[in-house]
Amino acid sequence: MVGSKLVARLARDGHLGGTSITQVALIDKVKALTPEGVGFDVNSVEGDLAEVRTATDALAHRPDVIFHLAAVVSAEAETDFEKGYRVNLDGTRGLLDAVRACGEGYRPRVVFSSSIAVFGEPFPEVVGDDQCLTPLTSYGTQKAICELLLADYSRRDIIDGVGIRLPTITVRPGQPNKAASGFFSNIIREPLRGRPAVLPVAQEVRHWHASPRSAVEFLLHAATIDSAQLGIRRSLTMPGVSVTVAEQIAALRRVAGDDVAALIRYEPDELVARIVAGWPRDFDTRRARELGFRAEASFDEIIRVHIEDEVAGPIATVGV
Amino acid sequence: MVGSKLVARLARDGHLGGTSITQVALIDKVKALTPEGVGFDVNSVEGDLAEVRTATDALAHRPDVIFHLAAVVSAEAETDFEKGYRVNLDGTRGLLDAVRACGEGYRPRVVFSSSIAVFGEPFPEVVGDDQCLTPLTSYGTQKAICELLLADYSRRDIIDGVGIRLPTITVRPGQPNKAASGFFSNIIREPLRGRPAVLPVAQEVRHWHASPRSAVEFLLHAATIDSAQLGIRRSLTMPGVSVTVAEQIAALRRVAGDDVAALIRYEPDELVARIVAGWPRDFDTRRARELGFRAEASFDEIIRVHIEDEVAGPIATVGV
Repeated sequence: MVGSKLVARLARDGHLGGTSITQVALIDKVKALTPEGVGFDVNSVEGDLAEVRTATDALAHRPDVIFHLAAVVSAEAETDFEKGYRVNLDGTRGLLDAVRACGEGYRPRVVFSSSIAVFGEPFPEVVGDDQCLTPLTSYGTQKAICELLLADYSRRDIIDGVGIRLPTITVRPGQPNKAASGFFSNIIREPLRGRPAVLPVAQEVRHWHASPRSAVEFLLHAATIDSAQLGIRRSLTMPGVSVTVAEQIAALRRVAGDDVAALIRYEPDELVARIVAGWPRDFDTRRARELGFRAEASFDEIIRVHIEDEVAGPIATVGV
Repeated sequence: MVGSKLVARLARDGHLGGTSITQVALIDKVKALTPEGVGFDVNSVEGDLAEVRTATDALAHRPDVIFHLAAVVSAEAETDFEKGYRVNLDGTRGLLDAVRACGEGYRPRVVFSSSIAVFGEPFPEVVGDDQCLTPLTSYGTQKAICELLLADYSRRDIIDGVGIRLPTITVRPGQPNKAASGFFSNIIREPLRGRPAVLPVAQEVRHWHASPRSAVEFLLHAATIDSAQLGIRRSLTMPGVSVTVAEQIAALRRVAGDDVAALIRYEPDELVARIVAGWPRDFDTRRARELGFRAEASFDEIIRVHIEDEVAGPIATVGV
C-alpha cells in the first residue's frame, strides 16, 4: 500500500531530491500496476527477492535509490514461520547480496522500511533513540535482523542504507490485511464509509500512528538526506502521534460526528490484545526530528489526511 | 579452544547438571580429537552446520543440550565477508532450523556463545544489561543476529536457548589465532614461556577478560540453569575483569617478575587499535551474577589460573 502511494508520488513529482527520475523498476510477488501518465520508464517485475535471479534482475540498471518495503506482516509472520523468515529476512539479504555482487563501486541508497515491532516489553513508557531491540514477534525479530544487516553492509560500503521504523500506518486505505494492527485503521476507515467496525482491544490501549502520506514523506526524505549524519546507527524511529483508542474515537467524533463513531463495536480478541500489549506506545524521536522527518501533530489531522487522500468527496459521503 | 576444554571437562565430570552423560557428538570443520578415558560414547563429525545434512546428522540422537560455539573470529569475519556470514549466521540458523525440523516436541537447551562484540560505540563507560546491540564489526553483527534468532526460536518453543556473551578469553593457550583480541593473551602467555610478545595498542586500552576455565564454567552453568528466569531476554553478558593493558602488565610483573614483563614490546598496529577502540571496556553484569555466573576477581587470578591449567610445572619453567 505504501509502495503504490510512493510510486504514484514519484510519478507526480518526476524527480527525487532534485534529480530527474529516468527509470523505475517495481518488484513484487504480484506484478504491480504501472501508474498512468508517467514521465519515465517503468519496469514491473513479478518475483521473490530471496531468489538470486530476481534480485539481480532488479538491479540490472543499477538504480541510485532502492526502496525496500517488502514484508510479510506481523500476524502472518507469526502463523507462517518459514514464510516470514523467507520474505522478511532472506528477501532483504538477497537484495543486499545482489548489490554486493554488482561490485564496480556500485553503492545505492537503500531505504529500508523497518517497524516499531523491533521493540518489545519491558520498555519505558516513552521509548527513546537508545532503546534496545528486543522484539516479541518473529516479524519484529526479522526487522531487527535486517536493521543489523543494513548497518553492517553500509559500514562496509556495499550500500548506503537508511532504515526507518515506521509507526503503525493509520488510516490504512482499502481492505483489512492480516496485520494485528489492522483494527487501528478499521475503526476509522469503516465508520467514515458508514460501515460498522470491530474493536478487538480495550479503549485504554495506547499506540503510535502516522498517516500513509507521512510514510511516503519519510521514504522520500530517507532517500535524499545526507546519510553521513547517521553515523553507524543507520536506523531511525520515525515521528508519529501517540494516542489511546479512546482518543482515536474522540477524534473521529470531532471530525465526523457521533453517529459515525457509534459504528464501532467492541469484540475482544485475546490474540490481538496479547500481540498489541507487547508493542510500544509512545516515542521520543529526537534523532529523526533533528534530521528533518515530520509526521502529523494530532490524530484529528491523521483523520483529515485520510479524508483528503482517500474518501471520494467531502465528509457528506459518509452519510452524516 | 573453549570447545575442547569443555569436552575434557565433561569427560572428567561424567555428568551435567546431575544427569549422567551417555553420548556426545562433536561437530567441527575438522574432525575433533576424542578425549581419552571417557565414560560415554563420543561421535566426532567433520562438517559445516550451514549444510542441512550436517546439522541434521548432529541431531540424530536428539541431544538434550547443544553447545554452539562455532565461529569465524572477528578479524577473519572482517576480511572474509562471505565466510563470516556463512559460518556465524547461516551455521547457527542451519542448526536451529534442523532442531525445528525434528518436531515431535523436541526442544533442546541450546547454549550459544555470543560476544561482547555485539556492543559498539557510543556506549557508556560501564555497559549495563539494557545496552542496545550496535556492533561495529561483521562478527559482532553476526553474533547480534544470532542472539535475535535464539530469542525468537526460544519464544516459539523450538529451542530452549541461553546466549552468553563471553568476555575476551584471557589467557588463551596455544598459538595466536586471527582474532584482533589475540594480543591480550599473547602479552601474558608468551613472556611466561620466556618468549617476546608484541603489544599493538597503547597501555591505556581497557578491556574485559575472563579465563578459559571461567568460560567453561559459564557454558556448564548456562546448560543447567532454569531458563524460565531469563524471560524473553535470552542472552546475558557474562561477568569478567575490567583492566587496562598497563594493569595486565602490572599483574604479570607481580605474578612472574620484572624480567618476564620486560619481554613485551610495543609495536603499534592501526587496524587492531581501530577495531579494539570500538569495543566496550567495562560491564555491570547484574543479571548474570544474580543467575549465579561467576568469573575471576582480578587479573592476577586470571594469570594464576592460566599457570595452573596450562603452564607445565611451576613458574620456574619460564626461567625467572
